[in-house]
Amino acid sequence: MKQILIIGSGRSSSVLIRYLGENAQKYGYSITVSDRDAKSIGEKIAPGARTVSFDVFNEQQLDEEVQQADLVISMLPALFHPLVARACLRHRKNMLTASYVSPEMNDLDAEAKSHNQLFLNEMGVDPGIDHMSAMRVINRLRKQGLDLLCFETFTGGLIAPESDNNPWHYKITWNPRNVVLAGQGGPARFIQEGRFKYIPYHRLFRRTEIIDIEGYGKFEGYANRDSLKYIEKYNLQDVPTVYRGTLRRPGFCRAWDVFVQLGATDDSFTLQNTENMTYKEFINSFLYYSQKDPVKTKLYQYMHIDQDSNVREKLEWLGIFSDTKIGLKNATPAQVLEQIITRKWVLEPGDKDMLVMWHKFIYRTPGAEKRTLLTASMVVLGDDPVNTAMAKTVGLPLGIAAKMIITGQIKLAGVHIPTIPEIYEPVLQELAQYGVQFAENQGEWKGEE
Amino acid sequence: MKQILIIGSGRSSSVLIRYLGENAQKYGYSITVSDRDAKSIGEKIAPGARTVSFDVFNEQQLDEEVQQADLVISMLPALFHPLVARACLRHRKNMLTASYVSPEMNDLDAEAKSHNQLFLNEMGVDPGIDHMSAMRVINRLRKQGLDLLCFETFTGGLIAPESDNNPWHYKITWNPRNVVLAGQGGPARFIQEGRFKYIPYHRLFRRTEIIDIEGYGKFEGYANRDSLKYIEKYNLQDVPTVYRGTLRRPGFCRAWDVFVQLGATDDSFTLQNTENMTYKEFINSFLYYSQKDPVKTKLYQYMHIDQDSNVREKLEWLGIFSDTKIGLKNATPAQVLEQIITRKWVLEPGDKDMLVMWHKFIYRTPGAEKRTLLTASMVVLGDDPVNTAMAKTVGLPLGIAAKMIITGQIKLAGVHIPTIPEIYEPVLQELAQYGVQFAENQGEWKGEE
Repeated sequence: MKQILIIGSGRSSSVLIRYLGENAQKYGYSITVSDRDAKSIGEKIAPGARTVSFDVFNEQQLDEEVQQADLVISMLPALFHPLVARACLRHRKNMLTASYVSPEMNDLDAEAKSHNQLFLNEMGVDPGIDHMSAMRVINRLRKQGLDLLCFETFTGGLIAPESDNNPWHYKITWNPRNVVLAGQGGPARFIQEGRFKYIPYHRLFRRTEIIDIEGYGKFEGYANRDSLKYIEKYNLQDVPTVYRGTLRRPGFCRAWDVFVQLGATDDSFTLQNTENMTYKEFINSFLYYSQKDPVKTKLYQYMHIDQDSNVREKLEWLGIFSDTKIGLKNATPAQVLEQIITRKWVLEPGDKDMLVMWHKFIYRTPGAEKRTLLTASMVVLGDDPVNTAMAKTVGLPLGIAAKMIITGQIKLAGVHIPTIPEIYEPVLQELAQYGVQFAENQGEWKGEE
Repeated sequence: MKQILIIGSGRSSSVLIRYLGENAQKYGYSITVSDRDAKSIGEKIAPGARTVSFDVFNEQQLDEEVQQADLVISMLPALFHPLVARACLRHRKNMLTASYVSPEMNDLDAEAKSHNQLFLNEMGVDPGIDHMSAMRVINRLRKQGLDLLCFETFTGGLIAPESDNNPWHYKITWNPRNVVLAGQGGPARFIQEGRFKYIPYHRLFRRTEIIDIEGYGKFEGYANRDSLKYIEKYNLQDVPTVYRGTLRRPGFCRAWDVFVQLGATDDSFTLQNTENMTYKEFINSFLYYSQKDPVKTKLYQYMHIDQDSNVREKLEWLGIFSDTKIGLKNATPAQVLEQIITRKWVLEPGDKDMLVMWHKFIYRTPGAEKRTLLTASMVVLGDDPVNTAMAKTVGLPLGIAAKMIITGQIKLAGVHIPTIPEIYEPVLQELAQYGVQFAENQGEWKGEE
């Protein structure tokens, strides 16, 4: 009997483990779920699955477990993947992750190929479903001999309309630290009408565009990191506009930008005396000194926030002007802000999250004047706070790919991402059975105003 | 006869070499000037001085030269000081620099002390004259039993009024790369009325204050890096306001901020295709795409620069909307901007630079209501493009300190900076003979509006 080893049983593993458990008997494999902390595996475990607890730094135990497996799925933070990958190389096992291919991972390509091993990465939602769904359309248009003029893609992990009850229209459905740091680490880069464009972090949340998705209303998108990397990944060298973005509900970015402008999302230095500081004092540490003006007045004046701006409601709802003690020692601004938002943007029992993905393509017949706009949108709602839309859209593609690898349906070797039809066609087909599918809309494109 | 070895003969060494040459006979020492590039020593050389050309990475030759010397002055970029310092340790020689004490330098304190060697650093203008002139006042006020309530200090390397003929009122008198990167690398930090304050880089040039210096008009100051470090250096733990700043002429910061906002001062990534890019295209790469709007219109609209704003004049004077080719391969935005400013902010033959330093102290008799404002200002003008105010204010304190060390007038051991009376009193006294001196003004302080 074939063996699948899942290393790491965090929040986003639940749906993956359930999917693999439900399909184990039919496809003739068994699964082992491991975690450093045995308790964390807890209720996530599928019937009949074996559990084991070990630290990934314990090379001997890692080797023992990897040796028994036919496929290893690493659900650990990306920085631990190389440890697992090296164990997989030692024992000639296939490996699967939902993370971006790091330079270290990329370096293993030749060795993996030489042993006919597959290291399949970026197999979650973003990266993952974005690659697959975009490449399916791009390859289809190309087969039809059409010229692609524009490709834009946006993804957002948001809150379902029925659970949307705060002025930010946002709750935390993934790592809150990443919510605070989103957009940091170099300018956003993309290409528009053949021109390279760069947006520094401190301007990112003011360069948004509005996107309307039928049945779900309006969203706003801001540029997501380095879109230029995708030109090569998707083979878009001849496409004049390539842009990746992140979705929020309208108004989010304008208000979040206040924290960016203050310097309150900075994770590069520690503040003095955060242990005894209140939220209001935290905000005040980024404002000019005044003997008379209250912190709130100073903030609104410094940031040019008018009396009737809904930014005020958002900021005040977060409690940033309160005397709540931070209580953290030597915290960075980002760590304090993470505490503030984690206490308020809570996914309550009964809340459902929502994963939204939206692609925009503009194409034409070579030489023709007339251009066509094609949009493809996917909206997935969570079932509950465990089977979230996030866990489903990360776990299901991973699970389907695992099943395909273990049954020999995917026969690749080397380091890969799912931009090839041999992977994305069957995965997208099965995802549709779980309601993870795209609706397309098409019409003539007359250009922007 | 005693020997002084000067390693590095760059722009700021000229006055130092001349000073030491003029005093050599009287104080009974000889000097050796070394540089990797013999040509660069050129005309700077003092009569009777020996010159030698070697690479500081050539340990054998470095050892030979250091061994013959009694005092080694390193004028190399700060990152090379540890190489020189280790050679000095091997041969038990004293060392002198104008650079900030690095952690590596600081680690040598115990060893230097144990061999009775002095490693005196931060002996130029900023750091250097700032330490000495501030500590002289601080210690005087303390001796008088007064309570210090506020210490602010500002320095600027600027252009003399008679040579000030561009709308920025600025020319490059030091490393142009540092002009572009000024303020980067962590937020500005200071303490005001007992409250810690932090300004992120993207806000730095909009949080300025105006300073008036009699006879020289108005300047604007922005916060300079981490003022909190100076609390310990100057022993100011009980002083509620400690702020260090950099001086420019009014209007400079508002216009420079346009580059900061665009992301054009970023040195962390390379732009696509800079070799064939024009200045206008460089600016456009940070702006939104538009089929119709010219780059200039887009910039002014994006940055909210009104028709009558003098920011327009400054930007246009720099030629940023021109079709000049950059011609640099794989350049960062900062490198492109450095090229732009280096071509325009040129110190022409006959131009004189100006070094301005300004301290503000507020103090009172313990328990008293009445507070006194004391300001101390220093303005030094350059003689010509070689004997600049910058070269004088860096070279003279170094030269005086060198003379004092070689004649046994300074008898310290270990790693030091000139915050101690034994150093600053005689140095400031002699500096005054060269016109490098402070004018003090004093009056009742009634507080800000």
